[in-house]
Amino acid sequence: MAHGSRLVDLVQARIEEFLSERTSILRSIGPDLDSLDEFSRRFLSGGKRFRARFCYWGWEAVGGRGFDPFESEAGRDWFPVVSAASALELFHAAALVHDDIIDNSDTRRGAPAAHKLFEQLHADSGWAGSPADFGRASAILLGDLLLGWSDELLDEGLQALPDRQDARAARAEFMRMRTEVTAGQYLDILEERAWVVQSDADQRTRAERVIVYKAAKYSVESPLVIGGAIAGASSAQVAALRAFGLPLGIAFQLRDDLLGVYGDPEVTGKPSGDDLREGKRTLLVAIARERLAAGPRRLLDELLGDADLDAEQVRMLQRTISDCGAVDEIERLIAEHVARATAVLADAPISRDARAELGSLARAVSRRTS
Amino acid sequence: MAHGSRLVDLVQARIEEFLSERTSILRSIGPDLDSLDEFSRRFLSGGKRFRARFCYWGWEAVGGRGFDPFESEAGRDWFPVVSAASALELFHAAALVHDDIIDNSDTRRGAPAAHKLFEQLHADSGWAGSPADFGRASAILLGDLLLGWSDELLDEGLQALPDRQDARAARAEFMRMRTEVTAGQYLDILEERAWVVQSDADQRTRAERVIVYKAAKYSVESPLVIGGAIAGASSAQVAALRAFGLPLGIAFQLRDDLLGVYGDPEVTGKPSGDDLREGKRTLLVAIARERLAAGPRRLLDELLGDADLDAEQVRMLQRTISDCGAVDEIERLIAEHVARATAVLADAPISRDARAELGSLARAVSRRTS
Repeated sequence: MAHGSRLVDLVQARIEEFLSERTSILRSIGPDLDSLDEFSRRFLSGGKRFRARFCYWGWEAVGGRGFDPFESEAGRDWFPVVSAASALELFHAAALVHDDIIDNSDTRRGAPAAHKLFEQLHADSGWAGSPADFGRASAILLGDLLLGWSDELLDEGLQALPDRQDARAARAEFMRMRTEVTAGQYLDILEERAWVVQSDADQRTRAERVIVYKAAKYSVESPLVIGGAIAGASSAQVAALRAFGLPLGIAFQLRDDLLGVYGDPEVTGKPSGDDLREGKRTLLVAIARERLAAGPRRLLDELLGDADLDAEQVRMLQRTISDCGAVDEIERLIAEHVARATAVLADAPISRDARAELGSLARAVSRRTS
Repeated sequence: MAHGSRLVDLVQARIEEFLSERTSILRSIGPDLDSLDEFSRRFLSGGKRFRARFCYWGWEAVGGRGFDPFESEAGRDWFPVVSAASALELFHAAALVHDDIIDNSDTRRGAPAAHKLFEQLHADSGWAGSPADFGRASAILLGDLLLGWSDELLDEGLQALPDRQDARAARAEFMRMRTEVTAGQYLDILEERAWVVQSDADQRTRAERVIVYKAAKYSVESPLVIGGAIAGASSAQVAALRAFGLPLGIAFQLRDDLLGVYGDPEVTGKPSGDDLREGKRTLLVAIARERLAAGPRRLLDELLGDADLDAEQVRMLQRTISDCGAVDEIERLIAEHVARATAVLADAPISRDARAELGSLARAVSRRTS
């Protein structure tokens, strides 16, 4: 995947260049803003860059010319797609900063979440008031800053596109994605609370809806379509990217749900059983609840969402969910959705290179361990 | 001010039209999202619309043609400026939703703040978990939604502009404003905490910096420049709008600071002495601390920021700040800044109508009671 690693470097460089421009505004105001600058950079280095990669391969799929080092003026050709890919990463960083406040999640990729960094800054500086309040408040503002910037970075890329129609199509997909993922996040936190008054018969459908809007469209389908639009995708090409992206995005999130319960903390950078303590009502939980007898189901409902679960309780819940067959069913669903996605590739009106690369991305995404 | 009230109606109609389009995406996902829809609308009806009005008068000042009902195709002429003015109101609503979480402020315009509305929804629905946590989390997402939408509404307006140069100038000002106001908000919450370790000699300068970035540029200068840019302002016209806008914006915020301590709750829609309980380190407080003897200053520092101040303590603080002459000094500063702003108008290269209207807006803004 030579293109892939070259892309990750280009995205990192583009993000750093863009952040330097924006943080120069902060520096012109005063040195007290250095931590906004520092924490922005910290949250934007590393990560798996899945969204950037899907955006790039959506572009490549419909005739973007790739990163040929022998091409003259190579830089300009890929400036729009690399900027859009970078904008998706900026948007994602903003969403994670707010998400960690919303979920009371204290770690992210094995390091402190943004609100914990600001909390520590407060504690270290001997300031007045509550460090936790300052941490949350500052992280809300950091997320707002990154949200605005993501949009500006996208625009810089789209302004360099010769075709206004393509730019409008890419922007329209970005806008719709932004609304849908925020709605999906709201449904996610709603399900954690509202399940008590919902009918058990609806729980699977409701969990699926969260997957589609919070993750599948956002993490895979829309990045692909944005990349495709930048390369001037026809409506048949957009349809193929969606038909591939949506089931793969569902598989992506189902893997995430399994990692949230069974992931190795050393690899995921999140505490073991994090989703259990947060009380996420995932499809995994919905399926377990369907399969469990009344007694164990009641126990599951009682413990799920208890922030103080100890290691033994986490292990017990992991076993309960696994022994009833819910994990196997999710694995089957992942395999089915990946198969559905890759089946689309065979006849998709896209480049041969992209077909191979999207196939291998599909495998990577659905088998990952972090 | 016939133009002014016509503008407010046009802005309201434009916001409602835009929200209907966007919330149709929410409705297509599911009825659980109705509250995002409802609360968006609630936070976007009413308000003083100062930012929209400054945007309009910046446009009118440099040759926008106004709302002449006899003009053919009148609607299209003002579509860009009304959209930009509406986008500023959407951005402002987003900022207030997040601001009320940050400041733990439970009321806004005499009604519950967004996080309190979601908290109530949770309590009324019999959901699991903490209503307050759900309230905060949902309001973070509502603010994110409105932030994204504000940008989209601006873009719809700018895309209808025939001159791309004008559109780029308007957008550049909007982007810079967005970064600066977020930085200003961060400095604001920082000052509330960091003042204990700062030198007393710097407190006035630091309070002034918050005023400039959190309020003056954001509420007055940038809206004027965005409107001016849409009408194709020359650099001399932009300079005049800034020279008028910045001092007026400072006066605007100084009035706000007085209202935060002395405002009538019936008129402001905020509890009496709200800023005292929040511990805002405003210029008013900085000046009072300069003027007070060590004993009363220590008492002021102790009480400021105590969320549980009772009515008697609030009255005592109000008297302390007023008796030392700080209120009179702020009133003098307001008058000076308004005079500086209106002096600019005399020779400004702008329309005669706009000159008169900006003069009367300056008086309205600096004398307001809410």
